Amino acid sequence: SHSINLAVIPGDGIGQEVVAQGLKILAAVLPQDVKLETEEYDFGAKRYHATGETLTDADLDSLKKHDAILLGAIGDPSVPSGVLERGFLLKLRFAFDHHVNLRPSKLLPGVATPLAGQPEIDFVVVREGTEGPYTGNGGVIRKGTPHEVATEVSVNTAFGVERVVRDAFARAQARPRKKLTLVHKNNVLTFAGHLWTNIFAKVGAEFPEVTTDYLHVDAATIFLVTDPARFDVIVTDNLFGDIITDLAAAVSGGIGVAASGNINPSGEFPSMFEPVHGSAPDIAGQGKADPSATVLSVALLLRHLGYEAEAVRVEEAVAVDLVERGDSVRTTDEIGDALAARVAS
Amino acid sequence: SHSINLAVIPGDGIGQEVVAQGLKILAAVLPQDVKLETEEYDFGAKRYHATGETLTDADLDSLKKHDAILLGAIGDPSVPSGVLERGFLLKLRFAFDHHVNLRPSKLLPGVATPLAGQPEIDFVVVREGTEGPYTGNGGVIRKGTPHEVATEVSVNTAFGVERVVRDAFARAQARPRKKLTLVHKNNVLTFAGHLWTNIFAKVGAEFPEVTTDYLHVDAATIFLVTDPARFDVIVTDNLFGDIITDLAAAVSGGIGVAASGNINPSGEFPSMFEPVHGSAPDIAGQGKADPSATVLSVALLLRHLGYEAEAVRVEEAVAVDLVERGDSVRTTDEIGDALAARVAS
Ligand SMILES: CC(C)[C@H](C(=O)O)[C@@H](O)C(=O)O
Ligand SMILES: CC(C)[C@H](C(=O)O)[C@@H](O)C(=O)O
Repeated sequence: SHSINLAVIPGDGIGQEVVAQGLKILAAVLPQDVKLETEEYDFGAKRYHATGETLTDADLDSLKKHDAILLGAIGDPSVPSGVLERGFLLKLRFAFDHHVNLRPSKLLPGVATPLAGQPEIDFVVVREGTEGPYTGNGGVIRKGTPHEVATEVSVNTAFGVERVVRDAFARAQARPRKKLTLVHKNNVLTFAGHLWTNIFAKVGAEFPEVTTDYLHVDAATIFLVTDPARFDVIVTDNLFGDIITDLAAAVSGGIGVAASGNINPSGEFPSMFEPVHGSAPDIAGQGKADPSATVLSVALLLRHLGYEAEAVRVEEAVAVDLVERGDSVRTTDEIGDALAARVAS
Repeated sequence: SHSINLAVIPGDGIGQEVVAQGLKILAAVLPQDVKLETEEYDFGAKRYHATGETLTDADLDSLKKHDAILLGAIGDPSVPSGVLERGFLLKLRFAFDHHVNLRPSKLLPGVATPLAGQPEIDFVVVREGTEGPYTGNGGVIRKGTPHEVATEVSVNTAFGVERVVRDAFARAQARPRKKLTLVHKNNVLTFAGHLWTNIFAKVGAEFPEVTTDYLHVDAATIFLVTDPARFDVIVTDNLFGDIITDLAAAVSGGIGVAASGNINPSGEFPSMFEPVHGSAPDIAGQGKADPSATVLSVALLLRHLGYEAEAVRVEEAVAVDLVERGDSVRTTDEIGDALAARVAS
């Protein structure tokens, strides 16, 4: 299609600033004949305080009409922990069946990493996005008493596991190294572990060219710091994926450059693209935020909508900027301008 | 008491080799007038294959009579994943109510770390050991069909959380920096998260000198590689503790030096001390295993039994050995001999 109808959710904290840069780059990179329409939504802490709402059914109906969603960040210390996370972010991921949570990690030469020896890092985590311990199943009895019991139920279905495992195998198959690592904890979480392990083996039989590997999540964190080069594609559960992608971001250039896509592969619902970093209220409004993670999320958005050449141009612009920036201190806006100039030329 | 009645479980793989060094050091460091009695148990893969047993009620009755347990490693690729973990390791931790799983991390000057810039690392993780997603609650329906559903239930009780949080506050109180960080994921796992957060605040009021902090588990993995010096004592759930202590071991000298204590503080049951590394079947029987983690676990055992001066001597011996070893290649036995000589002098 020669138009993109984008929902834009700046959200809280630095969300406003970084999303503005994302849109700048999007406008600069798209071919002249593609019409970009954007509609901004006011989700987040302010609206929650004003109305008590996080994400209504009417909101979902409006969002559904867009081709994709660009999100800055949702979350503020003024809102009790969990309210916006469960009431907005997770509600949206579940409502729009974002079962492929895609998180690439690539350490560019010259980019700072806490690891010694500048290791090679170029992998992508396919995190399941609609099941596991994130379903909100569980509950509390005898709340606030010495006899309180709180449970959290991780729900895993063959349907949910197979589709994300299949997606990950297809991604591994399309990459030069063709290697897929399943990360779980099947020696302790044996019910869910067997389901993941069996489906991984079954689907793997259909992808004979893909080399497979299995790691317990605890061991995976070790290899992420001692031998990250061993990873190509990782597929994992919602919670393990949450944990290892923050670590992956930290070792491959920091949370300032970590992009993510919450993808509904069938296209039944719009997919959502967001930087992995949060709203960072401590630096909000000061022009200090690095918009690179949002801009790289825009690249994932472009790729998802079929603009592969444009996605590559955005990724290359960020890569060059990261390598060339050295110790220079620039504002959020200045980085955005520099990236927009690069992708336009 | 002037005698120690120790249960020794060498177990699988390198377990045999490293436990032998641990016993060597124990014999060398104990005062002449302390009688050390040991009884060896044959748990692990071999016994499982021969008898189908992992840990029987009669075994538990025998083990119960000891003052403490020293374990090498349990686990072998010939046994399906989960059988020995759930059937032996976790069964023992649960049966003997090892609710304080203690895992110190200290990076010694000169010791190799994957992190750049040799950061200061000296913290201890107090991992809950008898609840959370480790209870084995959950199940499977429609196994092996396209409609399979597998659940894992994390069980958290006020009783279980409060006792481990209290233990962690007391440990923080006794350390110079007096700082305790709660690690959880209370923005997503809100049922268990609220329980942990509320009890942490309540018990914290009794320890006004202890500075408290909270981190989501994903953020904690970032700080473990970007700013590990911020940690003093960490208290966390069973699964989060499993994950972050492997990462902590990796950044602070590697899994070869990571010790742990599975502690029953009341003394109703014997506590168990084990290296964090597994059975490493790939290097078993070759004299390549580093016994330092086991020897440091012996130090935790000594401290638990009241031999504080001896514990410190063992820790200092390992520290000096680690710093002085450089690139020298020594066998498991040679390292053990060197350590025994150091603690004896
Ligand atoms: C904010 C939180 C709900 C979210 C998650 O846990 O998925 C975040 O950590 C992420 O990784 O996108
Ligand atoms: C082997 C496994 C059951 C165990 C755990 O998950 O607790 C291990 O990883 C550990 O950390 O002691």
